[in-house]
Amino acid sequence: SRTDAPWREAVAALLAGAVVAAFGGEVLRDAWAFRLRLWRHRWPDLLFAVPAVLSLGTSGPQGAATLLALRLLARELIDLVAWRPARPVLQALLRRPLPLLCLSFLLTILLGTLALMFPAATRDGLGAPFQVALFTATSASCVSGLSVVDTGSYFSSFGHWVILGLVQVGGLGLMTLTTTLALAFRSQLSARTRGAMQEILEEDTVQGFQGLLYSMSLITVTLEVLGAVALYPSLELAPDGRVLPTSERVFSALFHSVSAFCNAGFSLYPDNFMRFVGSPGANLTVMALITLGGLGFPVVTSLLDWGLWRERGPRRVWRYLPVHSRVVLLTSAALGLGGALAWFVLEWNHSLAGLSWSQRLWASIFQSVSLRTAGFNSVDLAKLGTPMMLLSLMLMFIGGSPGGTAGGVKTTTVAVLAFTFRALLRNRSEVDIMGRSVPPATVYRACAVTLISFGLLFALAFLLFTAEPHLPFRDLLFEAVSAFGSAGMTTGVTPQLSAVGRLVVCALMFVGRLGPFTLALAVGLSKARASYSYPSTKIVVG
Amino acid sequence: SRTDAPWREAVAALLAGAVVAAFGGEVLRDAWAFRLRLWRHRWPDLLFAVPAVLSLGTSGPQGAATLLALRLLARELIDLVAWRPARPVLQALLRRPLPLLCLSFLLTILLGTLALMFPAATRDGLGAPFQVALFTATSASCVSGLSVVDTGSYFSSFGHWVILGLVQVGGLGLMTLTTTLALAFRSQLSARTRGAMQEILEEDTVQGFQGLLYSMSLITVTLEVLGAVALYPSLELAPDGRVLPTSERVFSALFHSVSAFCNAGFSLYPDNFMRFVGSPGANLTVMALITLGGLGFPVVTSLLDWGLWRERGPRRVWRYLPVHSRVVLLTSAALGLGGALAWFVLEWNHSLAGLSWSQRLWASIFQSVSLRTAGFNSVDLAKLGTPMMLLSLMLMFIGGSPGGTAGGVKTTTVAVLAFTFRALLRNRSEVDIMGRSVPPATVYRACAVTLISFGLLFALAFLLFTAEPHLPFRDLLFEAVSAFGSAGMTTGVTPQLSAVGRLVVCALMFVGRLGPFTLALAVGLSKARASYSYPSTKIVVG
Ligand SMILES: [K+]
Ligand SMILES: [K+]
Repeated sequence: SRTDAPWREAVAALLAGAVVAAFGGEVLRDAWAFRLRLWRHRWPDLLFAVPAVLSLGTSGPQGAATLLALRLLARELIDLVAWRPARPVLQALLRRPLPLLCLSFLLTILLGTLALMFPAATRDGLGAPFQVALFTATSASCVSGLSVVDTGSYFSSFGHWVILGLVQVGGLGLMTLTTTLALAFRSQLSARTRGAMQEILEEDTVQGFQGLLYSMSLITVTLEVLGAVALYPSLELAPDGRVLPTSERVFSALFHSVSAFCNAGFSLYPDNFMRFVGSPGANLTVMALITLGGLGFPVVTSLLDWGLWRERGPRRVWRYLPVHSRVVLLTSAALGLGGALAWFVLEWNHSLAGLSWSQRLWASIFQSVSLRTAGFNSVDLAKLGTPMMLLSLMLMFIGGSPGGTAGGVKTTTVAVLAFTFRALLRNRSEVDIMGRSVPPATVYRACAVTLISFGLLFALAFLLFTAEPHLPFRDLLFEAVSAFGSAGMTTGVTPQLSAVGRLVVCALMFVGRLGPFTLALAVGLSKARASYSYPSTKIVVG
Repeated sequence: SRTDAPWREAVAALLAGAVVAAFGGEVLRDAWAFRLRLWRHRWPDLLFAVPAVLSLGTSGPQGAATLLALRLLARELIDLVAWRPARPVLQALLRRPLPLLCLSFLLTILLGTLALMFPAATRDGLGAPFQVALFTATSASCVSGLSVVDTGSYFSSFGHWVILGLVQVGGLGLMTLTTTLALAFRSQLSARTRGAMQEILEEDTVQGFQGLLYSMSLITVTLEVLGAVALYPSLELAPDGRVLPTSERVFSALFHSVSAFCNAGFSLYPDNFMRFVGSPGANLTVMALITLGGLGFPVVTSLLDWGLWRERGPRRVWRYLPVHSRVVLLTSAALGLGGALAWFVLEWNHSLAGLSWSQRLWASIFQSVSLRTAGFNSVDLAKLGTPMMLLSLMLMFIGGSPGGTAGGVKTTTVAVLAFTFRALLRNRSEVDIMGRSVPPATVYRACAVTLISFGLLFALAFLLFTAEPHLPFRDLLFEAVSAFGSAGMTTGVTPQLSAVGRLVVCALMFVGRLGPFTLALAVGLSKARASYSYPSTKIVVG
């Protein structure tokens, strides 16, 4: 598949020249006409400029040109969207937000695939073959973290930038895409769509949407930069043992910080996180980033409400947090502690074998935090015992919390189901959580999301098993659930997958990432009315 | 564990003597006092009399004495129930039908275990050890069909009669117990309990209950006798190849007929049904019995409504069948045909390898019919390919239809979920099936039954995996789902289970058999009210 390299290189050189010329021409034209106003809309160029300049240093002109080509392509797409004959199509699409969401994600993946196929993307200068590029781009966009190659040594610095970008877009994608859509096309959206978006975003006004987008960006950038700073000291050595030069070390810190915050689980080390198994600094930083990203913006924002802390005092804040936040925090804490305890007890002689007491403790906590959706591993998952493997399937299927970077059917979904079960046992017709009743529509949504997710997972897992008759059943099952829950944990079979198997895993990642979210949106559209004795509360599930 | 045999035999002899004396004394006393009125209440004695006399011929006096001992025990239990100081306990229990149901089942299992531990129960004259007896009694009462020993050669004729009795009680148990309770203690039942029972039984009056019990008994006996007659010609040879004497052949025909109608899957042949793989007579009879038992009495009764056939003509009957019957028939047909097709295609080179075309066809259809809940196998399941194994997991989890002898979460539950999914896609707030709306309570019940069943299965499977670290993952998973869905299919690991593993499988069979049914009852107790544009229909799920 790599015999066409000289041909590809020539095309890439041509493309690089064309792109640099086009970009230069545009800049000159705008400068000539003093159309400074237009530059306000050129902020995406700035996004590409920084990595382009950095790529010049590490991957040479080809990397920079590739980035500019991608930017040009994005620009053309935006122009296409604004193009008059395309408007009816766009408007028809805008009336159906779910296909739009899926299309945006597909487009992101295709652009990412294209970028990773460029010669500049791999260290050997040949570019990734189509299926490797597609798998990596899907895995990055769906923040799954599964990989058929060793991300660190296979891809070049440019390739790593592409993955970083896809992870960032994919991790925040569901929230930002929805918010951006609501913001950008608010007049064209149908009432139903707007209603659904308001339901998900918990904001009703344009100011609300803008504020949300602003605070999300601010929180993301701040936490990722802080995370990178905290990780920097731990990343002294390259995977091969040499001391990393400062620029690469900065990038590595940034890459792992973004990967952790977006719950992506991509690592530049071939052993993922195993070398840091007992290192408190790296463990705490990554766990904090995973947790903050996985709790979801509504929860983080409610915790960052300084007014509440000042007014009520730290001891009484809990009672004044929104029910959604309290449910998320309690469920996450319960799953985290339970998972760590289970890992410690059940894995003592399996994946934790040969480690010291403190390493075992660190590894258990880290694995529990990372397992549900982040996908970093500080121990070898090929040694996983069957009982913990089974528990892991459940935890990966549950995933993180809604409105953040996490995958899975979401903690709140499971919490609602648990409280519904309690109501059932108590023979009550209404489900209440913490003195608030949960609307029947939410219960219905939680059931629908869980059951349909399970059905989709089953159907795709069936395809995977059919495509891979020779790989071990246990490992494939783990792989399927891991891909579907955007967890990215693997016992090591990912690189052994056949071409068809890789495609099925891509489908699992895509469906698993978008399925629960879009389902929750879809089910949210048809609400049943009912009168209840408790005041009603809103809990986002899926 | 079999060193205590002489001791046991002495006890058994003593017991036999005591029982015969007590029984004789009772009969004499009643005859002396001319208390003929009392004999009306002695009909259970007749139930024991036939097998007791037959046992005298095959297992000698010990078998007959054992049966009489059991009868005495049952009598004492009935007396205990009627005992004045026990009344408050009984009445408290009657107000809670679900614990009562579970207790009755547990009691049946314990009595069965006791019976199978008697020396007369096994062919070696030592009696089954406790855990073998418990496992077999649980498997028979829960109509699962899993077995840790070869049922045919391990147990004596008396043992087979016990298993047959347990299968009959267990297969019809859920329906008959509910009906009998409703009938016997109608004045003591709380309004809520009565409401729930009426919901399940679809009858509101005492006459209705009595009629139901009568028609159920009639249908069962008729079909089982017809089945035995149809099976008789096929059962010419014993497992070891010798020609069966007529009395044993009659019993074998009866045993397999009851086992098939009750969806139990117990066979007296060590290879289960594999010797009949291409035999049309045996295949058709067993499939018919499985299907009729698995469709449930409400459906069979509605199909046996001669008035409807006469009045509407055979071509228009379909339209006048209750929606519940049509849903059951359509879902069963779809699952059966789909399963047969899948088995034929996916298993061509696995479990069907080496068979002729016609054998493959027969085996596919038979396996598809038997798989979901009956548990007979005409091919070697150890050779099952992974894709079909995965499909089998789903089919076994679904099981048969409610109100019959089948297990699993039931076809109607899945049908309601599928139609709910359709309503979701069409963005409709009400779920309709065949022009009738399904009440929200039913949708809710279907979701609850499926999700909670899944949760219970997961928890118990986790225990099984923890108890059996050395058995293959795939086989254990299959075993767990098979036990939970009362399917009784196995890839052959049942006898290899450890003592703890056997207990867990017993729990799986018990919870899987009673769980969905009691859940459906429990959820049915709290109904939500809503007004709908379609006329409402009632569909029994779970
Ligand atoms: K991940
Ligand atoms: K069975």
